[in-house]
This record gives sequence, structure tokens and C-alpha cells, in this order.
Amino acid sequence: MTALNSTHDPALRSWVETANLPGADFPIQNLPFGAFERDGHARTGVAIGDRIVDLHALHEAALIDGDAALACAAASGGSLNPLMALEPRYLSALRRALSALLRRDSPQAPQVQSREAALLPRIADVTMRLPCEIGDYTDFLTSLYHTERHGRYKGLADPLPPAFKSLPIAYHGRASSLRVSGGEVRRPRGQYRDPHGNVCFGPAPALDFELELAAFIGRGNAFTQPIAIDDAHDHIFGYCLLNDWSAKSIQWFEQVLGPFLGKSFHSSLSPWIVTAEALAPFRKPAPSRAAGDPALLPHLHGTFDQQNGGLNIELEAYLSTTKMRANGVAAVRITRTHLDNLYWTFAQMVTHHASNGCNLRTGDLLGSGTISGADDLSRACLTELTNAGKDPLQLPNGETRTALEDGDEVVFRARAVQPGAVSIGFGECRGTIAPALEALASSGSSMSSRSEAHA
Amino acid sequence: MTALNSTHDPALRSWVETANLPGADFPIQNLPFGAFERDGHARTGVAIGDRIVDLHALHEAALIDGDAALACAAASGGSLNPLMALEPRYLSALRRALSALLRRDSPQAPQVQSREAALLPRIADVTMRLPCEIGDYTDFLTSLYHTERHGRYKGLADPLPPAFKSLPIAYHGRASSLRVSGGEVRRPRGQYRDPHGNVCFGPAPALDFELELAAFIGRGNAFTQPIAIDDAHDHIFGYCLLNDWSAKSIQWFEQVLGPFLGKSFHSSLSPWIVTAEALAPFRKPAPSRAAGDPALLPHLHGTFDQQNGGLNIELEAYLSTTKMRANGVAAVRITRTHLDNLYWTFAQMVTHHASNGCNLRTGDLLGSGTISGADDLSRACLTELTNAGKDPLQLPNGETRTALEDGDEVVFRARAVQPGAVSIGFGECRGTIAPALEALASSGSSMSSRSEAHA
Repeated sequence: MTALNSTHDPALRSWVETANLPGADFPIQNLPFGAFERDGHARTGVAIGDRIVDLHALHEAALIDGDAALACAAASGGSLNPLMALEPRYLSALRRALSALLRRDSPQAPQVQSREAALLPRIADVTMRLPCEIGDYTDFLTSLYHTERHGRYKGLADPLPPAFKSLPIAYHGRASSLRVSGGEVRRPRGQYRDPHGNVCFGPAPALDFELELAAFIGRGNAFTQPIAIDDAHDHIFGYCLLNDWSAKSIQWFEQVLGPFLGKSFHSSLSPWIVTAEALAPFRKPAPSRAAGDPALLPHLHGTFDQQNGGLNIELEAYLSTTKMRANGVAAVRITRTHLDNLYWTFAQMVTHHASNGCNLRTGDLLGSGTISGADDLSRACLTELTNAGKDPLQLPNGETRTALEDGDEVVFRARAVQPGAVSIGFGECRGTIAPALEALASSGSSMSSRSEAHA
Repeated sequence: MTALNSTHDPALRSWVETANLPGADFPIQNLPFGAFERDGHARTGVAIGDRIVDLHALHEAALIDGDAALACAAASGGSLNPLMALEPRYLSALRRALSALLRRDSPQAPQVQSREAALLPRIADVTMRLPCEIGDYTDFLTSLYHTERHGRYKGLADPLPPAFKSLPIAYHGRASSLRVSGGEVRRPRGQYRDPHGNVCFGPAPALDFELELAAFIGRGNAFTQPIAIDDAHDHIFGYCLLNDWSAKSIQWFEQVLGPFLGKSFHSSLSPWIVTAEALAPFRKPAPSRAAGDPALLPHLHGTFDQQNGGLNIELEAYLSTTKMRANGVAAVRITRTHLDNLYWTFAQMVTHHASNGCNLRTGDLLGSGTISGADDLSRACLTELTNAGKDPLQLPNGETRTALEDGDEVVFRARAVQPGAVSIGFGECRGTIAPALEALASSGSSMSSRSEAHA
């Protein structure tokens, strides 16, 4: 996986000129995978500039062969899961073939261009979907800074849980309410304590965002069979941005066995899976442990992972309010952070997750947890940015925030950056808070409909 | 759903004589649904005595018509999910048609009997599978006794979490490692503290069972749309037994955001879904709240649910050890409990779960949590049965247990019982602890295979 191949050549440019613009998320070195809907059909594709290579159309056009054609055929049924489940060499072959088709000097460029309408729709003209079917979603807690700050807000003597440096702490998340970036994030109703300490049920205050990166499992492991740490990288197909929207008021009241309704109302994913292969030039050593930290247990210590388990990825969060947008005030960047702020590597998360024999399946999602760092700008949720509400966030138009209000839009962006490499982006993870729905009607009417259904 | 129909008639008997035996789990009043493998094909079916009505074969035989035939067709593809997603009247029609086919005086009995090999395989001759595809699995914590005992073991001043009587506490479980009853339950490896307090990684001691009932979601709710409490019953297709195997040693160390690897190594389900419709004669009022308990919030208070939200179900756990079986000592009943011991109804669990807009999908599973009661025999896990290890369990052959050892077999059984009704059973949920696998080989060999895969 460290081995660079022809697709990583920084000199490459594409004949899709929007891929070559400075700061483009999807240059020819990236080739991220996604799923979309086009004319009512489920499709998969690969982003290049402002276009998508439609893998179903590419399969029908028969412009590639060998392993690349097999990989393309696997993805041509409208779901990425069959491709993700293959040996990594199939993905490599497909990326090389796409790179060869799309590069400026490609002899096949005219063939693609002559079928541009079928083969290369504009991203703006399709509806993106979740990139794959996600069986189980796990969310980790791997930023020491995020964990410590929250421990301090709770007034804990030792703000870091004892297990934090021994294993990557995690919980099972809700898969059904994962949604692709864009559109409305409905404010949930829920039980919480009002300022007088009374338990009430209603639209949840204290809504927050949490900026995360998430890994998609490619090949899974068999039930009861763990994954060795240096094999773990081969089980990660790629990464996307994750907004782990949180209703803190619900969470504070409900939480006994971990987060539940405080999170399960909506989690947003950016539409494109940036492959682990595309990120090879951005690998770096695993974040180093501080002096005095407990030694890594052997099953979490891999030679390959220690040397290559980190990724040079910068992440940002932007906020705009209804008033800001109405008055033409640009969204303000409220967080800038780096993947270095994670204490654990994604390979360690994979190995830990499977260490009890739990089977990870193709398409499973592993969130990093909120990627907060030590400095103020790197706080990756509003709770931290406002010191648990004590220091409201000052917005450029004079508004302030301690929590997200209806109409607030949060946008995440991220880029992999490395000297000597063409930087690649993740696209956006976007969502706007919509007001809570009206409360349900009285149970009388619903009872009559129930009885009718059973008559 | 309260309305009884012809399938509930206590006078009914079947021409499948094993269904009429005293104490049979699957009399003609039950007709539970399951999935199995037969000659390499995925099939669904309905249990009657020691037989299964193969719904694929029934569909092909064209012995039923109308809504019943449509329901049968929906289930004939090898998965129950399409049937579970239908309006409840389709299930009712299919149950009525099956009841009519299988009753003693059925004019169609000869037609079924003449194709017995195809239509009515023996349960013992097929391999049972998980009854449906389960997208998300949620486990609740709804026994006050279980919760209080564990709080006391931890030395908490108030052993009951503040939210316990305001909402049914829950966490997301792992769907991928749910397995049908039977066979081996592999002891997991994991991180835990040894008796000296050192963190180590190895085969997990302190393995436990937890006796639960679980509900399957039939029709789901749309994303962002809650479910009114008196509609919740119509979203429950049926119930099965759940063994929430727990590696307490792992759980005690890892648990910050709820159970994770301490549970996700294996959870066992009994193969048959006893439908909510079959359980109609066993309905009873919701367990009453004690004086001084907080009032139910309105969205969790339903007239229908208060009158019918309980179920008269008795549950038991049996234990046998390798030595006991070798010496012909019968399995010993170690737990006998009742669903009355739950503080919340399943309808309240459904409504709470969807109250934030979280979408429940057809096939989703909701575990009750360990169904422990007040008295000693109703403690539904070894941790409680042994007072957290202080009072080892005495077995009839002189062995003792504070935790499950390799070779121990745990069997759950449950019956719905009501005067005037033919009692119906859930079948068994069975599992035997197998020794942990050997530790993984060094990462050296796996690295070379990794490099090869990417060559």
C-alpha cells in the first residue's frame, strides 16, 4: 500500500480541465468513488474535476480490460460494495485504467469525449447517495484533547478514562440514520432536563456538530477471526468526512450505556470515498506516544503501521447562519485541525474492533471521533469551541452561538497535503439545521388507524 | 391486535400430531416464522410441531389464495423481510390460511400430506438461519432489578441511573455478530485488568450469559417521523429469545461509551419469530409503576399500551457443563423469570427509539435487556446469580461456577401462558462456550502477504 504507482505521479494532468484547477478536490491523482442517482437508476462513479465517470456506462462502453474491467463490472450494478469486497489489486487496476483514460495525453480521450453525455455527467446534474451500503457503523473516541476537555467540563479529577491509552474507545452507532451530505438536518425531539432540572420532552436544545474522518471497510474478516495489525491497512477501502451531529441535551440525560438518541437522529457523510490507495503519498508515521504513556500491547503494534499509520490530512469546519447568508456574509471557518490529533491509527481501530472475533463486513464504517487538537482553532465541535457554553462563539455579523440554531449551516472540508504531491480533497460534508417537526397528534386518531389495519 | 381471530381458538388441533403434544412449543395456535437452509437454498417457513411448512414450496403448490397467497409469495424468496414489511393484514391472512390447512378437520390435509416431503420437512433435517436480515440491533436495559443489582455491585450510592424511570435506557448493539441459536460460542480475546490491576490481552475470563426477549420490527417508520405509542404495537412483527453473551472482564475495562467488544463477539437468537399476533391471547396490562415513580411523559403513555403492553411470558435458563453431560447429569435450571420484570413495554421501547426521528427498518432487533426479577431464581445472568462472584453457583455434581467455563452449555426456553389459552413456546436459544482461538501469528508473515497482495 505504500508502494506508489503511476496514478500518483504529480506531473499528471487531465483533459477534464476542472480537475487541474488549483485547489481542486478531485484532480486526476484522487479518483474517489461514490454512488448517485441518474434518471432514476442507481449508479456508481469516480469523480474527476466537476465530472463523474459513470462506471455502469464505462462498463458498457468496454474501453478498459483485464482486472480493471472486472473491477468496473463489480461496481456497475449500482453499489460499490462488490468492488470494495475484492482483493485490492482490482481497485489498483481500475484506478490505473481510469488514470490512463483521463490523462491529457490519453489516446482514448476522443473515444470518451465522443460519449461524454453518457460517460461523464456533471456532479451538479446528479443526486449523490450514500457511497455504499453500511451494515454496521462504529464511532471511536480517539482524540486525547477532545476527551480531556469533555472530562474537565464534567469536573472529573482525572479527565481521561483509564482505558484511553490502552485501546481505542468506541461505541456502536446507528446505521439506519446515516445520510449523505446535503439538505436538512431535522432538529430532534427528545427528553432532557430544563434549566430547573425538570425532565421534559421537546425540540432538543444544545445541538452540536462533531468533525470526524471515517474509514470504510473493504474486505471483511471471518466471524471469530481477528485481523493482525499489519493486515489492517488492507481492510480499509477509503475514507470520507463524517458529521456526528449531537443533541447534547438529550445525550446528557439519557447516557448510561453510551450515546443513543442524542446521536441517532442523523449523521452526515461526504459523498466521496477517497481511497486508501490515493492517500498513499500522504502516509506518515503513527502519532507518537508521550513519555510515560503505557506501552502499546503487542497486537496493536505493527511495524508497517508505526511507520505509515498516520495521514497528512487537514480538516476544517465552516459555519453560516440564516442572517449571515441573507446579508451576503461568507461562512466563517470555526475549526481547523489535523488528523495528527488522533491518538490511535485507523489500522489500530480495525485491529482492536476485530480483536474479539467481531466480524467487520464490507462497507462497515469506522468514525474517528471528534478530531480536536490542543490549540483553540482545532477544537472540532461547538461544545469545545465555547468552553462548554461559557465563551459564546462570536460570528462576523455580531451574532453569537453556544449551540446550533435552526437555519445554521455547517460545512466540513478536508485535504491531504504533502510536499511533492498534488494535494487531494474530500469534497464537502454539508448540513443545515431545520426546525423540529410538530409534535405527533393525539393517540386517539392513530389508534383508530391501528384498529382498522387489523380489522 | 387485541382482537382474537380463528387462529387463536384453543379447541384447535393439528393433523401434525407432534403439534398436539402437551408442552409442545409449536402447536397450531403458534405458527412462528423462521428461515432455514435446505438443499443449499435459503428458505422461510412456519413451525408446526416438529415440522416446518416450507413457504417457497407452499407458494409453488398454490394451495392458498388472496392476501394469504400474496404474503406467502413475499416470503418465498428466502427472506422474511418482505413479508415483515407488509401491512399486518397480510400476516393475519397467511396465519389463517396455514391454520386452515393444518387443522385436523382440514379438507386440504390430503393435498398437503401427499406432498409432505416438499411441503413439510422435519425441523431436525434442515439448518436454521437467522430468521431475517437485521439492519440495526438495539439493546435496552429495562429490568429495574438487574439495573439496581449492578449499581450496588459497583458501590453506587444511588444504584438506579436518574433516567431509568423516565425513558427506556438503551445502546446500539453489533448487528454483524448476531448468530442463530446452536453451536459454539467462541470465547473472545480482549483487554482486561488481571488480578494485579495490570492491563493484559488474552482469552477473556468472566464470561456470562444474559437472558433477554427481543422484538423484531415489521413495518418501519420514515426517517425523521416518530411513532405514536399506540401505533407502536403495529410496528412489532414478533419476538424471539436473545442471549446477550457478555465478556464482563472486557466490558469493565473498556466501557466509557457503553458496551463494545465485551458484547460484540457473539449474540445468539432463537430461530423462530413468535408473532405478536400469536401472542394476542397472552396480552396483559403494562407493568404498573410504583407510587412515587415519575409520571409517564405523554408520548410514552398510550391507552392501548397501558391496557395491553405486557405479555404473560415465562422464561428459563438451563446450564450444563462438560462433566455433567459426560456423567449423564441433566442440565440444571438456574433462572426462572417473567416478562413482568420489565419496567417498560416493547411499545414504549419502539416509541422512545423513534422519538428523535430515528428510522427503524423492517428486521431491526430490539433486545429487552436482562430480564431479572426480585427473587433469587429470577436473576437472569451469572453475575447476579452469584452476587457478583461472591456466592458461587453450586451445580448438582459438585462443580461450582462464578463465570462460564469452556464447554458450558446455556439453553434458554420461554412460554407464553394464560388460563384458557393453549400455551405457546419460543423454542430454544442454545450455545456452548468454545475455547479461545490461538493468538494470531507474528505480524511478519502477515506483512509479506500484505505486500504480495499489493505487488
